[in-house]
Amino acid sequence: MKSQNAIYAQSGGVTSVINATASAVIESSRKSKKINKLYAGKDGIIGILNEDLIDTSLENSSDIKKLMHTPGGAFGSCRHKLKDINQSKREYERLIDVFKAHNIGYFFYNGGGDSQDTSNKIAQYTKDAGFPVACIGIPKTIDNDLPYTDNCPGFGSVAKYIATSTKEAALDVKSMSKSSTKVFIFEVMGRHAGWLAASAGLAQSKNNSAPHIILLPEVTFNEKLFIKRVKEVVKKEDYCVIVVSEGAKYKNGKFLADAGTVDSFGHKQLGGVAPRIAEMINNKLGFKYHWAVSDYLQRSARHISSQVDLDHAYAVGKAAVEYASSGENAIMPIIVRKKTMPYSWEIGKVALSKVANIEKKMPRNFISKDGFGITQSCKNYLSPLIQGEAWAPFEDGVIQTASLKNKLVRKKLKNFKF
Amino acid sequence: MKSQNAIYAQSGGVTSVINATASAVIESSRKSKKINKLYAGKDGIIGILNEDLIDTSLENSSDIKKLMHTPGGAFGSCRHKLKDINQSKREYERLIDVFKAHNIGYFFYNGGGDSQDTSNKIAQYTKDAGFPVACIGIPKTIDNDLPYTDNCPGFGSVAKYIATSTKEAALDVKSMSKSSTKVFIFEVMGRHAGWLAASAGLAQSKNNSAPHIILLPEVTFNEKLFIKRVKEVVKKEDYCVIVVSEGAKYKNGKFLADAGTVDSFGHKQLGGVAPRIAEMINNKLGFKYHWAVSDYLQRSARHISSQVDLDHAYAVGKAAVEYASSGENAIMPIIVRKKTMPYSWEIGKVALSKVANIEKKMPRNFISKDGFGITQSCKNYLSPLIQGEAWAPFEDGVIQTASLKNKLVRKKLKNFKF
Repeated sequence: MKSQNAIYAQSGGVTSVINATASAVIESSRKSKKINKLYAGKDGIIGILNEDLIDTSLENSSDIKKLMHTPGGAFGSCRHKLKDINQSKREYERLIDVFKAHNIGYFFYNGGGDSQDTSNKIAQYTKDAGFPVACIGIPKTIDNDLPYTDNCPGFGSVAKYIATSTKEAALDVKSMSKSSTKVFIFEVMGRHAGWLAASAGLAQSKNNSAPHIILLPEVTFNEKLFIKRVKEVVKKEDYCVIVVSEGAKYKNGKFLADAGTVDSFGHKQLGGVAPRIAEMINNKLGFKYHWAVSDYLQRSARHISSQVDLDHAYAVGKAAVEYASSGENAIMPIIVRKKTMPYSWEIGKVALSKVANIEKKMPRNFISKDGFGITQSCKNYLSPLIQGEAWAPFEDGVIQTASLKNKLVRKKLKNFKF
Repeated sequence: MKSQNAIYAQSGGVTSVINATASAVIESSRKSKKINKLYAGKDGIIGILNEDLIDTSLENSSDIKKLMHTPGGAFGSCRHKLKDINQSKREYERLIDVFKAHNIGYFFYNGGGDSQDTSNKIAQYTKDAGFPVACIGIPKTIDNDLPYTDNCPGFGSVAKYIATSTKEAALDVKSMSKSSTKVFIFEVMGRHAGWLAASAGLAQSKNNSAPHIILLPEVTFNEKLFIKRVKEVVKKEDYCVIVVSEGAKYKNGKFLADAGTVDSFGHKQLGGVAPRIAEMINNKLGFKYHWAVSDYLQRSARHISSQVDLDHAYAVGKAAVEYASSGENAIMPIIVRKKTMPYSWEIGKVALSKVANIEKKMPRNFISKDGFGITQSCKNYLSPLIQGEAWAPFEDGVIQTASLKNKLVRKKLKNFKF
């Protein structure tokens, strides 16, 4: 009985494989015996509040397949967080109005920790309001900081990008160190958890000692020890590759990136821990250096996504629809690791109420004793997640991407004022 | 008659495909009827002066094949430039000593403009000294600024990286612009010529308008016009992607990157035009922004090299050995474009004396009238160079690379003091 419609929305920073999850939600909804039409929130939950609903049934299946290799968020995403019900009752009421107007029985919310919390609240609110909507959270975050799930779709692909880029750049620096750059600093994302910086450690192999230093948010930055280590590495290897998390911080909790650099006009200069580290090295050791900040390039680099990550991203989307169709509510599909070597996994589930407000950081036993690297246990955990090359198809020398119609459903309600 | 040995050396900044050229020189030398052993200068010409010669005959052919997908410089490179013969006669004399000691009849020098000039001087000097060595320059530079050759091996691969990364990041920014980042700034290499920044223009397609602004070293930067344009683009598109060449400069010739930023201790902060541009936008328009500086990542990204570029890189190496074997001297193999659509090319040659001291910049008709983009003629020129995906083989989730023995030949001379 296809009696009700569903809404899918993307939330927070996008990943290189979030559209693979979208593709799975759409394909599985089309197969579901419960779901009639699947709408997508334009620009995420903002679009639901605005009643800007994209009718995904108008997209043809070949375009939906192309989502498997299209970075970005196919329907748009946003950083709008619904507050507590008491604080933003108007928004929850509006959601109910939109759900009722469009006969919505299922809500799929694809995001990080905050979004899972929101999904849970919506499930509760719609139930209490006598118009129950099945809310399924779908995990997604490059930060890999969600609890219960073994890893987060989106993470493995950035980890692969970082490990490969580190190895490639290290070979470059090594071959020039005799007369040119001695120190290379690579800044990667991760404001509170060091999973991404840690993944650079996978670049190490028999013929590559880099990265020599990894700076994690979990380890307090000590300039003196750090400078000493750089000096030692350069003495031994003639070059030094440093991977630093954007969230690296001092003992007082202050981010290195916010250390108060001003431009010539006295304006505060924002961001960039890599140039800060470069300055330190220049001032204390005088080595020639180069630095890179890959920023959005890392999280959108679909051309080098990990096949395992892509498979995870598709699987959680598919499971979300299947769980909803079988009557589940207020849960999130998770990835369950059955075995590390060879890697095997299956899909499980967890109650959304358990997921909220927990941020999974790197455990101490994943960090080397000196705090400048990762342990073998950490490598064993990370390695399966970057396996397989899900090369994207290219067109005219550049990555090929889907081009959706994104046609909006006719509105039935008055405009909503934020 | 394999009566004489040869030396190959890499020079200047390495590329993602310079080792493909090395691979070709080695394989072709092994086939040559003239060349006995091929040595490689450890760390480039410094290694020749130091008599640090790597015996490539000890490497097995499968490792030489792996050079096709190994970034960096397999034998090391350097930025040591030989001055005029009058100014550094000692170095030229030392070269002759090394050449004589190891029975060198052929010298292959793989680099940019300066290296071609050096090769030419060595050819002349060895001839005048009565120990003529056939000197063949082999083109290599990501800057694409060598004359006569249609394009430079190493350039097409970075162009492909930049075009793809621009498209990927643009889709990310676009999908978040409603509530988050509106402006993304991507800094690419190119100190004097804008070829690399220009190549971002290849990301534009039916479903992608980015990059919206390209800042080239060939066009004087005008802050007022630039800020006006950013405002217009954001008004129209809701987001704006800017690709800026590290060599972008003001009317007075000063680089934007050298505009005098100081840190909180009053130290001058070095480099980074992207954060400078970000500051301007923040101060004048207040848009949320992100910026990326890919630095060495771009030029070492072998995983996404262009097949056409890889073919070129191999072909010039092969041709160098064949030209030398057939008695040529003081020339550089070049890439001759026979047709643009479909692209066809062949190898030609040019006298080294002609190549020296010419820097090929972007012609005016390749730059749009307003100076913020590229023309169709430019796209027609660039497009063939990024065609084909020469995906590298991966091992354990990370790019696989060659591991050479790099065993040095026994020295016959006294140490050289620089």
